[in-house]
Amino acid sequence: MPVNIPETAQKRVVIIGAGFAGLRLARKLFKHNFQVVLIDRNNYHQFQPLFYQVATSGLEPSSISFPLRKVFQKSENVFIRIAEVRRIMSEKKLIDTTLGTVWYDYLIIATGATTNFFGMESFETNSIPMKSVSEALFLRNTLLENFEKAVTIRDEEEVRRLLNIVVVGGGPTGVEVCGALAEMKKFVLPKDYPELDFNLMNITLVEANTHLLAGMTEVAGKKALDYLANLGVEVKLKHKVEKYDGNTVELEDQENLETRSLIWAAGVKGQMPSGIKKENVVRGNRIKVDAYNRIDGCENIFAIGDIAYMETKAYPQGHPQVAQVALQQANCLAENLKKMQRKKDLVPFKYRDKGSMATVGRNRAVVDLPHLRFAGFPAWLVWMFVHLMSIVGVKNRLVIFINWLWNYMTYDQSLRLIIRPSAKSVEWQKRQK
Amino acid sequence: MPVNIPETAQKRVVIIGAGFAGLRLARKLFKHNFQVVLIDRNNYHQFQPLFYQVATSGLEPSSISFPLRKVFQKSENVFIRIAEVRRIMSEKKLIDTTLGTVWYDYLIIATGATTNFFGMESFETNSIPMKSVSEALFLRNTLLENFEKAVTIRDEEEVRRLLNIVVVGGGPTGVEVCGALAEMKKFVLPKDYPELDFNLMNITLVEANTHLLAGMTEVAGKKALDYLANLGVEVKLKHKVEKYDGNTVELEDQENLETRSLIWAAGVKGQMPSGIKKENVVRGNRIKVDAYNRIDGCENIFAIGDIAYMETKAYPQGHPQVAQVALQQANCLAENLKKMQRKKDLVPFKYRDKGSMATVGRNRAVVDLPHLRFAGFPAWLVWMFVHLMSIVGVKNRLVIFINWLWNYMTYDQSLRLIIRPSAKSVEWQKRQK
Repeated sequence: MPVNIPETAQKRVVIIGAGFAGLRLARKLFKHNFQVVLIDRNNYHQFQPLFYQVATSGLEPSSISFPLRKVFQKSENVFIRIAEVRRIMSEKKLIDTTLGTVWYDYLIIATGATTNFFGMESFETNSIPMKSVSEALFLRNTLLENFEKAVTIRDEEEVRRLLNIVVVGGGPTGVEVCGALAEMKKFVLPKDYPELDFNLMNITLVEANTHLLAGMTEVAGKKALDYLANLGVEVKLKHKVEKYDGNTVELEDQENLETRSLIWAAGVKGQMPSGIKKENVVRGNRIKVDAYNRIDGCENIFAIGDIAYMETKAYPQGHPQVAQVALQQANCLAENLKKMQRKKDLVPFKYRDKGSMATVGRNRAVVDLPHLRFAGFPAWLVWMFVHLMSIVGVKNRLVIFINWLWNYMTYDQSLRLIIRPSAKSVEWQKRQK
Repeated sequence: MPVNIPETAQKRVVIIGAGFAGLRLARKLFKHNFQVVLIDRNNYHQFQPLFYQVATSGLEPSSISFPLRKVFQKSENVFIRIAEVRRIMSEKKLIDTTLGTVWYDYLIIATGATTNFFGMESFETNSIPMKSVSEALFLRNTLLENFEKAVTIRDEEEVRRLLNIVVVGGGPTGVEVCGALAEMKKFVLPKDYPELDFNLMNITLVEANTHLLAGMTEVAGKKALDYLANLGVEVKLKHKVEKYDGNTVELEDQENLETRSLIWAAGVKGQMPSGIKKENVVRGNRIKVDAYNRIDGCENIFAIGDIAYMETKAYPQGHPQVAQVALQQANCLAENLKKMQRKKDLVPFKYRDKGSMATVGRNRAVVDLPHLRFAGFPAWLVWMFVHLMSIVGVKNRLVIFINWLWNYMTYDQSLRLIIRPSAKSVEWQKRQK
């Protein structure tokens, strides 16, 4: 059954995914002569760079999520459908979704990336990933529940296991969540749980590489390491994890770590929709595209953002999977779609690296710009400014700013709520299956 | 197994429930010569009067919830335990909880009230109650999901059923949620869903009584009726609902109403812990108490708030189940517990009615004070001020104020997010069972 979308004379552009790439593309085509269908499984756009603050009770999910329908209010040419994509059928120019089939003139795959466990099942089962607002909330609830359990237990070994947190992966996510957890341990938890001895609690960051923040300069990685050590985080570089049963993390050739909370931030892989030909899928589960983000052998199917893999002279291994690439590819593709309409020559994508940054905590951050790098308080201010300005929605900006100011002044995040789904919601979900 | 609570020479006061009554009592005993154990199933206090704004996307759950541990930070005499109470064993001065057993010197039952379906199973199964933050969120998600479904459907009858909302119960909750929904229909939904025809949507309030807001003056009820009619809500007074299968509401001697969303706000009953003797339970599933909130025949067990039923000259049918009674009973009991310690005479509870109020929407509210009643814009301002001042936490106040101001100026609530629990959270919950 086809999805209920009005038929027009306009060419129909179907975009799968409303992350940085998909949302930007839809906005660029807003009020242009295309019919745009934006499909996502959620009715909101999520701002990934701040998931870790949701997980550590610093921000509410709503502050970093934005309803898609609000972005395209009163829009006449953008149609939003909340659905999962089941299959792409390129020979028929159709996709099959949980709402029915949708035909397209142009299909844009912007499904992004998901957690990569590199085939290690014990981590997939027992660790906690952080690649969606829902997962960040789940992590928050799990940590808080473990503290609550620790209060009621007398066995010191078990208390340690409940308090300890191990983070695997020393990229920006791993570094930022470790910093936030260390500040919670220092400023908030002893006040909330006067009954517990937080000297028993260890926060450990495990990274296989020789330095942190692999995407940035080595200087930045070293600085981040200093900051984390300063906050009491134990950083284990050149260590590989092997197995995790929910209680004990086994390290390669090393002693074990005891923890009930293992946060997995070790890598991502493309979130591949089904129906993409095998020969188009390359390493990291990404889709190989040409300089116009077009999929090889498909005139009218494109991939942009984290899922796309484009080899260029400057980036022979593909671009880094970051927001900037996604946004710039969306901009470029929007221009090219308009050019196609006017039968003009297409422009190849060229990435302009605007730099990268990571924050570790209060007054502590590292910034690498193309010709300048700095750290400390100024870097921390720049980090906040850039993130605040990148957030969708004036009210979200305002609310996040107030939260940050508040947390900064009071050394406290006050969102330590374990809000579970209602019994009825669980019951109704079961009924639907 | 006993719960891990340190033994002291202080008398131990165990409070079940951290609603208005339980939380106030614990705060009044904070830093006094008692050991206080506050037990709740959630790690936060919920501000019930604003649940309807969570349900209608106006406020976030976190704005009206407050972490219990934050209230009692650094406290030496208040112990918080997140647990369900399984049974009261008064002969042993023990309660059994999901964390283990807790002994008490004084036990305070402040479990509040829950939804009363008056034995009508079809409503219990298919309608949506609104007696917790989680339920309010579930209601929000359900309404938004129904709008999303309506977009994809061509059958007009089914579209109507998805858009229509029926609210049963014309007390403050029913009136307030109807007002908020009517404003959403008027200001927000047509912008979010330009594809849908909201002339198809009916909001209906069904009330068995002859007027709305039974706890207030008849003038206030009439005014609320005017306001609702003005906003396009169809109010059916003197109508009783009989059955609801999830699609069709059957009314006694009347035509049916078609809706997929029935909000149940028709009544409450005491949330009775097990182990209370049958002879102590009276109508409305409440516990009969004397003038000191003591349960008959139990020297050291008290009930306060919505669960308590106290007959007095002024209130021969018991006090109304409202926040003011709960707070005043908690204050009185705190004084009496201190008097008991000093072996002084106890003071009987006396309720001082400070008035009641309800809001219907922008600039529309009704206020009944003991010697004064008014409506409209001044009532609406008073309503906002009183609720803002009653909220726990300065930051919550600030955030709610900004939200209200924002919504007032923009005619918009921007929290229309359907955030579902992560797959892992559902999986882990199953595993625990």
